[in-house]
This record gives sequence, C-alpha cells and structure tokens, in this order.
Amino acid sequence: MSSACVNTMTISTANHLWSLDDVLGQGATASVYKARNKKTGELVAVKVFNLVSYNRPYEVQMREFEVLQKLNHVNIVKLFAVEKMHMNPKQKVLVMEFCSGGSLLNLLEEPENAFGLPESEFLIVLHCVVQGMNHLRENGVVHRDIKPGNIMRQVGEDGRSVYKLTDFGAARELEDDEKFVSIYGTEEYLKIQHVQLLIRNVHRGLKTQLVPVLASILEANQEKCWGFVQFFVATTDILHCITVHIFSLQQATAHNIYIHFHNTVSILFEDVQAQTGIELAAQQYLFLGHPLILEPSMKVVNLPLTTPDRPIILISRRPEKLVGHPYKEPEAPAMPTKFDVMADYTFSKTIVGVIHQYLRIACSLQKYRELIQQGFYSYIENTGFECSNVAHRIAMVNMKLLSSISTEEHLHLFAQRFAHEFPDFVDNKKKLPLIEEDLQRMYGSGVREFQNQLQHLHVMLSKHSETLAQDKSIQKMEVLLGKIVAVHQQYCKDRMTGKLSYNDEQIHKFEKLNLSLYIKKVKSLFKDDCLQKYQDVLMAAGSWNRVLYEMQASLEHFGVVLRQRMGDLHVCEAQQNKVLDRAVLRALQQPVGAEGVDGQKKDDEHMILKMNRLKDEMEAVARELQNNNNMIESLAVVTATLPLEKKVPQANGP
Amino acid sequence: MSSACVNTMTISTANHLWSLDDVLGQGATASVYKARNKKTGELVAVKVFNLVSYNRPYEVQMREFEVLQKLNHVNIVKLFAVEKMHMNPKQKVLVMEFCSGGSLLNLLEEPENAFGLPESEFLIVLHCVVQGMNHLRENGVVHRDIKPGNIMRQVGEDGRSVYKLTDFGAARELEDDEKFVSIYGTEEYLKIQHVQLLIRNVHRGLKTQLVPVLASILEANQEKCWGFVQFFVATTDILHCITVHIFSLQQATAHNIYIHFHNTVSILFEDVQAQTGIELAAQQYLFLGHPLILEPSMKVVNLPLTTPDRPIILISRRPEKLVGHPYKEPEAPAMPTKFDVMADYTFSKTIVGVIHQYLRIACSLQKYRELIQQGFYSYIENTGFECSNVAHRIAMVNMKLLSSISTEEHLHLFAQRFAHEFPDFVDNKKKLPLIEEDLQRMYGSGVREFQNQLQHLHVMLSKHSETLAQDKSIQKMEVLLGKIVAVHQQYCKDRMTGKLSYNDEQIHKFEKLNLSLYIKKVKSLFKDDCLQKYQDVLMAAGSWNRVLYEMQASLEHFGVVLRQRMGDLHVCEAQQNKVLDRAVLRALQQPVGAEGVDGQKKDDEHMILKMNRLKDEMEAVARELQNNNNMIESLAVVTATLPLEKKVPQANGP
Repeated sequence: MSSACVNTMTISTANHLWSLDDVLGQGATASVYKARNKKTGELVAVKVFNLVSYNRPYEVQMREFEVLQKLNHVNIVKLFAVEKMHMNPKQKVLVMEFCSGGSLLNLLEEPENAFGLPESEFLIVLHCVVQGMNHLRENGVVHRDIKPGNIMRQVGEDGRSVYKLTDFGAARELEDDEKFVSIYGTEEYLKIQHVQLLIRNVHRGLKTQLVPVLASILEANQEKCWGFVQFFVATTDILHCITVHIFSLQQATAHNIYIHFHNTVSILFEDVQAQTGIELAAQQYLFLGHPLILEPSMKVVNLPLTTPDRPIILISRRPEKLVGHPYKEPEAPAMPTKFDVMADYTFSKTIVGVIHQYLRIACSLQKYRELIQQGFYSYIENTGFECSNVAHRIAMVNMKLLSSISTEEHLHLFAQRFAHEFPDFVDNKKKLPLIEEDLQRMYGSGVREFQNQLQHLHVMLSKHSETLAQDKSIQKMEVLLGKIVAVHQQYCKDRMTGKLSYNDEQIHKFEKLNLSLYIKKVKSLFKDDCLQKYQDVLMAAGSWNRVLYEMQASLEHFGVVLRQRMGDLHVCEAQQNKVLDRAVLRALQQPVGAEGVDGQKKDDEHMILKMNRLKDEMEAVARELQNNNNMIESLAVVTATLPLEKKVPQANGP
Repeated sequence: MSSACVNTMTISTANHLWSLDDVLGQGATASVYKARNKKTGELVAVKVFNLVSYNRPYEVQMREFEVLQKLNHVNIVKLFAVEKMHMNPKQKVLVMEFCSGGSLLNLLEEPENAFGLPESEFLIVLHCVVQGMNHLRENGVVHRDIKPGNIMRQVGEDGRSVYKLTDFGAARELEDDEKFVSIYGTEEYLKIQHVQLLIRNVHRGLKTQLVPVLASILEANQEKCWGFVQFFVATTDILHCITVHIFSLQQATAHNIYIHFHNTVSILFEDVQAQTGIELAAQQYLFLGHPLILEPSMKVVNLPLTTPDRPIILISRRPEKLVGHPYKEPEAPAMPTKFDVMADYTFSKTIVGVIHQYLRIACSLQKYRELIQQGFYSYIENTGFECSNVAHRIAMVNMKLLSSISTEEHLHLFAQRFAHEFPDFVDNKKKLPLIEEDLQRMYGSGVREFQNQLQHLHVMLSKHSETLAQDKSIQKMEVLLGKIVAVHQQYCKDRMTGKLSYNDEQIHKFEKLNLSLYIKKVKSLFKDDCLQKYQDVLMAAGSWNRVLYEMQASLEHFGVVLRQRMGDLHVCEAQQNKVLDRAVLRALQQPVGAEGVDGQKKDDEHMILKMNRLKDEMEAVARELQNNNNMIESLAVVTATLPLEKKVPQANGP
C-alpha cells in the first residue's frame, strides 16, 4: 500500500487505515485517530495505545475492552472491533464509532456558547447522558470519568445532536453490594457538576425543576444523597415534560412551563400563576389569534403545540404591571492596549462570545416586539368581537323595548281611563324612555366609541409592525459579527504563527482598530436601535393595555346593565298583559252589537279614537323604523368585521 | 519591506500592497488583486495592466480611467486612485473599491443557484444594474460589456447584497446624437439578455410585469425597440411595486401580487382575479387570523405588510377547485459508471444543485402545509363567529316570536268572539308554531350542529398540525445535503489532484457509492415523506372546504329565512294591534261600572275567563322559560368562544 502524499504517514490494521495527521484526541495512554474501513470506506475512530499504556497491569489494560464489549446503547460510543497494528502486532487498536461533532468540551469552548448552551441543546445533553449512565448501571458498570471531554457528539439523521459517553479507561464494574449506593458513593457525582455549568442560559421554568435534582446528587452527606435510581427517575421525569410556551401580554414576559404530559391543565394554571403572579380567575388564553378555551380537567398532552415563536398568549383580566424582557447587557472586557498576539487572540475569542450574546439578546428583544404586536392584534380583534356581542345584546333589548313602547301606546287610552286600577302602568311611560336613553348611551358613547378606539389602536399597531418589518438591526449586527469572527480567525492564525512579519503585524494592528470600531458599532446598535425600539413598543403597550382594560371593564358593566333592563322590560310586559286582560275581559262583557246603539255620540267617540290610533300608529311606525335603522347600523358594524356575511342583506327588520 | 512568508511574492505601489496569491480575476490586458492600504489597512481591489495592454492605442488605454473618474454611484465600482508599481513605475495600477462577494457570475455558478437566483435577490440585481446603467447614461457613458462577470457583489451593512458595475475597459462616451438611441443601438441589449437567465425562479406575478419590458429591449427592429429612458422608467416602475403575498386557501396556491404603491386596492382585486380566477364579488380576505376589510378606494401602500410566511389569506365565497403547489420534481442526471475524477466532479456539482432544488421544493411544500393549516384554523374560527352571529339573530327572532305568542294568547278569546272581523288572526295561531319550528330547526340541526362540526374540524386540524410540528423531513434532507456537499468538496479536491493514490481512489469510489445512496435517500424522503404528507393535507383540505362551503351556504340561507320570519312577525304584530285596538275601543265604549250588572251569568263568565287566563298564563310562562333557557344555552355557546365574557352572567332573560 503506497501513498502519493509524502507529507503524511498512513498507518493501518487488517481492516482500517488512517493518517497520523487525522488525530482526534490524545491522552496519557492512547491517541485517537479518524480512520476508514478499507473495504467499505466507512469512517471510524481508532484508539491506539502507546507504550506507557503497556506498563499498566494486564487486567487494567483489558478493562476498557471488557467493559465496552458488554455495552450496546445509542448513548455509548460503540466498539466495533479490537485489531492489531500492521507495523507492530503487539500494539492493540480499538475500532470505535466515529462521532463527527467532536466532544461536548469542544462545543462548550466555541465562543458562541460562551454564555451557555441553548436550553433545547442542554436538554438533549442531559437526556443522552442520563440514558447512557442508566445503561451502564443496568450492566453493572461505573464510568468514573464523565466530563464534557468524554461526551462525544454525533449529528443524527434529522440534524439533532446525539451525545455518547466515551473513554472507558477509568471505568470499573460495580460490586454486587454497590448497586444501590448513592451517586456520591460511586465517585460519579463530581463529574455531574460539569452539567451544572451548562444551565446558565436555562429558563426559570426548567431551573425550578432541575435545581432540586442537581442539589440532591451534589449532597455530600451520603445519607441525604440520592441513589442513582432516584436520580434517574427524577431526571427522566423532567425529560418527559412538555414545554408550554406562554407569553403574558400585559406583562410582556415569555414563560416556558415544564409540565409532565399526564398532568391536567389545572396544574398548568397553577404553574402560570406561580411564574406570572396572575391568579387563576384572571387568566385568559389566546392561540393563533383566537380564544383558547381550556378545561381544567383536560390533559396537557392535548394542548396545541407551542413554540417560542408561536406561544399561547396569556391575557389577564386585571390590570398588570409591565415587566418586559429580563435581559442583561453582556460585559465586554477592555481591549489589550499593547500589541500581543496571544492577548489579542484571547480578547477576540471573548469578544466573539460577547457579540454572540448581544445578538441573542437583540433577537430576543425583537421576538418580544413581534409577540407584543401579534398579541395586541389578537387582543384588539377579540375585544372587537366582544363589542359586537354587546351590540347584539343591545339590539335585543332594544327590540323588546320597541314592543313595550308599541303595546304601551295601544293600551294607553284604556289604561288612562282605568288609571286607578293600574297605578304601575303610569310608571312605564316614564321607565321606557329611560331604558331607551340607557341603550343609546351604551351604544353611542359605548360600543360605537370603542369600535372607533379599536380602529385607532389598529392603526398605531400597524405603524409599529411596519417599523418592525423594516428593522435591519439584527442583520446589521450579524454582518458586524461576521467581521469580528473574521478578525478572530485572523488572530487565531497569528497566534499560531507567533512572530509576525512587518506587514502582517501592521495588518494585525489595523484589524485591532477595526475590531474596536465593530464592537462600538454593535453596542450602539444594541442601545440606540434594538433597545430603543423595544422600549418604544413597551411604552406603547402600556397605553394600549390601559385602553383595552377600561374597555373590557365597561363592556362587563354593560352586560350587567343589559340584564337588568331586560328584567325591567319583562316586568313591564307583565303589567301590560294585566291591562290587556282587563281590556279583553271588559270588551267581552259587552253584548255583541251593543256598541253603536248610543248613536251619534258613540260614533263621534269612535271616530276620534280611530284618528288618535292612526296618529299613534304612524308615530310608532316612524319610531320603530328609526330604531330599526339604528339597530341595523349597529349590526352592520358587527358584521362588517366578518366578510363571510358581506352579501347577506341585514335582517331583523322588515 | 520584507515578508516572513517565502512562498508568496508581495507587490506594492506607494500606498498599497498585495500578494500575487490574492488574485481576484484575470483578463487579456490586466489582472485584479485583493490589496491593502498601507496606512489604513483598508482592503481594495487593484487592477494591474500587463504588457499586452500597452500595445493598445494610448486613448484606448486612457479611456477606462477617464470614464471611471466621471462616475460616482453606489452601483458603480469606485475608482480611488491611479498609482504606479514600485517595481516598474511605467506600469499603471487602478486602485478600486473591493467587493467581498465576488461577481454575479460566481454567484450564478454556485450549485445552489443552478435553478436560478431567489426572486428577492433577482430584484436586487435588476435594481442595482438599472440604477448603475442610468448613472452611466446621465454621464453620457455606455458600458458595452454588461454581463454577470462584470457585476460585482458587495455585502451591505444590513447583509443585503449591493451589485456594482465594473470593468469599463470596453466603455466609451456617447456622442451627442446617440443619447436617445434605443438600447439595441448601443450594443447594450445583448448583454441584458443575461438578466433573462436569472428569472427562472421568478413568480408568475413578477414575470407578467417583466416579460414585456425585456421583450421590448430585445426587439431587433430598431423602431420598436425601446430607448433607454423608456426602459429605465418601466423597470423603475416595476421596482417601485409593493409585493402583496396572497394565499388562496381553497385552491391552496400562493401568489405574489406586484402592484405599484400608489394604486388602489381595486387594482389589487383585479390582479387577484387574474391570477386566481376568483371573481371580485367572491373574494374575502383574512389576515393574522381575522377578517381584513379592504375598501376598494384604499391605497395599497396602506395594506398590512405581508411576507411569504405571513400572507393575506384569500377565501372564495364560491366552491373552488384545489390546485396546490406548482412544483416540478427536479431531474437528476445519471451517475457516471466509470471512475473519472472530472466526470464525477461535474456530476457531483450538478447533484448539489439538484438537491438544493429538492430541498427548496420540500421547504415550499412544508410552507404550503403550514399555510393551509393556519388558513383553515382562521377560516374555521371565523365560520364559528358567523355561526354565533346567526345564533344571535335566531335568539332575536325567537324573542319577537315569544312576544307574539304571548300577545296572541292574551287576545285569543276576544279574537275568537269577533272571528268574523279578524279572519287573518286565525292564521297566526297556525303561523307562529311554524316559525317556532323554523327557528328550532335552524338552531338545533343548523347552528348547533355546525358548531359541533367546527369542533370536529379543529380536532382533525390539530392532528395535522402535530404531524407538521414533528416533521423532520427538511432537517433530514439538510443533513443529506451536507453529506452530498462534503462529497462534492472532496471531488473538487480530487479533480485538482488529478491522478489519485490507490487509497484516495478507493475513498473516491466509496464516496461515489455513498453519494448514490444519499441521492436515493433524498428522492425517497421527497416522495414518501414530503410529497405524501403534503398530499394528505391537500386531500383533507378538500373535504374541509366542502364542509365549510356548505356551512357558509346554509348560514347565508338562514340569514334570508330569518329576515322573512322577522317580517312575518311584524305583520302578525300589526294584526294583533288591530285586534287590540278593537278590544280597547269596545272596552272603552262600556260605561264604567257597567260590567257585573248582568249578575250571576256575567260573574260565571268572568270566573271562567279568569281561570282560562290563569291557565294560559302559566302555560305561556312555562313556554317562555323553556325558550329562554334555549336562548341562554345558545348564547352560552356563542360567548364560550370568548373568555373575556367568561365571568359575565348570561343576560337577556329574567
């Protein structure tokens, strides 16, 4: 076997070959290389033991093979074969699964993770490590060296990370009597502390769940320290939680509620109250712009799927204080004043991390702006729906009122004559116009006014939407980050080169000036653009909140008043029916044909009555028409918000 | 000035220096390098003329400098200075703006653009080239060599591309009499043809606008060929268009409407009809889940901002045929059977382009699924709102009906006695129960049934949403694309190496097998996953369409019936009023105290009447209670969709 490339040395076993250049890692007793299967071309990792390793006792040398051969789990790096070196058949080689993503340590050292892993990635790490550890336990093995450097990352076929425990050089088999010992007892606990470092970026909802679990296994008091089984159950429980993304609109705060899928929505309500301080009775939910009715007995697994971009919107029925995004502007270290490739490299690396954090916060602030605007859009639309509901009810009471007025007019001559029998009837004449006033007030300066205000809110909201849509601050920050990363990469090379040429030193210094400029630009972009616009929206949201809250309170009050007025009208109807009964009774007591016997006087009275009736009827018709027109207008406003109804002629009137 | 790096040769002028390695481009008369300003470190492009160039006539040599010096525009590459080479002061160097993005030709040759630029990028190219050309015209210059290789790309501070015309080696100044000559006449037209190649990926809406413009300048008949001014006005007009993103829900088609910002919405309606075939009268719009009321006289500039992800949803009031995504599965060439680094490289390059196109279509299909689901969510919610509107109107007619029934019962004894005077009154007794039946039917087997069906639609919809949320096909395809790109990059290297070592040849062959496997996986992922799930949703959408359309038609019909019934009740009321008037008149004609004079017979009649009345009244109260309960129930369903109303007790009844 020959190689055309003279610079690198190719090593092989019976089935695999690799170049000494392709080193993946180096330890005290072994080196790991990226290799290929000679027959299939498949990539593998080969662990080649050095001479030092052979000085260890034979059983120690064999331990790693023996342990690995027992294991078979997606979260443990697989051992494919044990082979011998072609050059030196005494030298053993472990052929193992190749993980293209490097180690968790590499990942954590990437500047963009300087402020911690994203929460979703952290949960994957936790899940994989716990599953891997459980498999070890089931096989009576303890790893004894779990740390980010020994957790490898593979990219799954769906692009998600899969983490795998590796390096079983320090592993040993558990004795029978150790199997129920606490995690502390198996020297594993110290290693798990590393996991704690990863949760910096984690949401409050998850922290609440994780902290007691981590505390329990970090407990030095062996009696209080959990056993592995307990730890496994607790973490698995957390990992079976559903994340419900909630955005509390009036507070302008995003919440991740971690809740076990078999729990009911009533538990969710409690968690929401714990995180937001909004009482159960005041919680209302919107999803995709529409009310989301949540029965307390419903299982959370049946909730609609939320994402941070598409959360359930929480609206409180009480006035709430604006809270906003809990951001903390990252601190950038001072730039080294002297020319020093090492110090400059360290600085640029830190800065890349800091700028990534700036960008993350800027994105988050922008996301808040978007959620606030989308949330208010829905809130306004639903308050409009509420207005139209009240308008319908006003129309209904109004119709009842018109009937009462009409009947009252038809009966009033009779009631006048028998006024002593119907003392309440006279009250109606006074009551009915008052109800009419009430209805006109609730409609004219209530619902109709609210609908105008909602229109106005929509206009203001759409101005903010436009500002947001045209906002380029994130893109600008990304461009600056790209430039900063380019400088960092240059500084990375400069550090490797060490002593720079005159020209390269000049370029290094120019770039340092540029770097300083880029950092300033990012900070000013953050402060004057991202933060400013975010605060503008927040301030606007405060005033929208007040308007909508007051409207909601008025509409509620109207509901109560309308119920009372409808009650009044029912009482009035009952009185009218009494008068009517009396009139019918009296009319029936007259023998048929009795009328008109009285001659001229009766005829005159008849004529006058008829004329009066005609006049009354014409007035009533005119009034009813006017009222019906108002009602139709009111319903037209309601249905105008619904184009499905566009072509249906407005009914309810002749 | 010395260089620590021995491999590369550093060249300089008074103010700039560069390495011969950093070549950006090479032509017949000059080479272009990436250089740095010695004082500021700023990156520039230097154009160094070779010996061949000095054989050209002096005025030709000078032309490029002279032309460039006259120009100053963001879409023309800037000339900073003309310097002399240190090594050879006779050799002139043009110091120009450096564009980090390479040329448009480079961009077009990237495999991911094999199927054309994205529409948004194409519009930027068109805009920049037209603006640049206009600046040339204004300065009496004609470029004469506009082609993708002479259009440089700069990344703007907001990350957007800025394209700049470069290489004025063939440029010349226009004579005075040429200034109004057609584009054809200035030899520019051929070059613009290149632009046409870019519009493959462009939406129908934009194509409709562009094709006549491009046709006009490609017209060989000089008299028909547009002049530059005409061309400039037409393209600028297109570039001032607003893009309105419309998703026609029942047809499941996405449309980009290009419309000039000063146009009115009535023009938009026409364009929508032209693209979708949906008549103006049938067009209804939703935005962010709610009805969007568009006045025809409104300016399009006042429309809400749409994006492909957040379009305006178009709903037709007529049944529409499902059309779906106009995708065309890309064709992958056959894999070369023999081992040939050159052929394999060409193949892998084509395949990267093809897989990018697969991915783009898969993303697009997924986007369609999401829009279909979001659209139907809103459509269902709004149909629910429509149901609640009709329920309100049923409740209203019902209230009127109850009044009529009650009055009818109070009057019926009198009407019976005088039946010959009120022949119509008897009809009421038959009519009113029929109206009651109508209302019960519209509510019970209408609105209430619809509300159940809508609930059922929501459940089905949320199942599809869940499938979509858990869909990993895009991520899987991205992982496969990543692997295919890696193979292509390897093949790129192999092509440069030429003759491979035995090992490298083996690896090349292994990778070819892998490549074949990856392609198969992408195709199967596309067909069995993306396409299948998309078609599932499309089929479901077809049935949802039918259900919602029928519901909508029924609700419309109910509206008509309710209007008629309300009219009937008004007629009935008028008749009752006549009877009432007659009764009051008769009652008034009896002298006060006349009743009871007839003694026992009258008293008995009085008692019987009173008993009958009591019975009737009790029946009426029971009936009214029952009806009110139904009504309250109906309103509870309506308001249950609105949590704002949750705590307000349901009114309208005593």
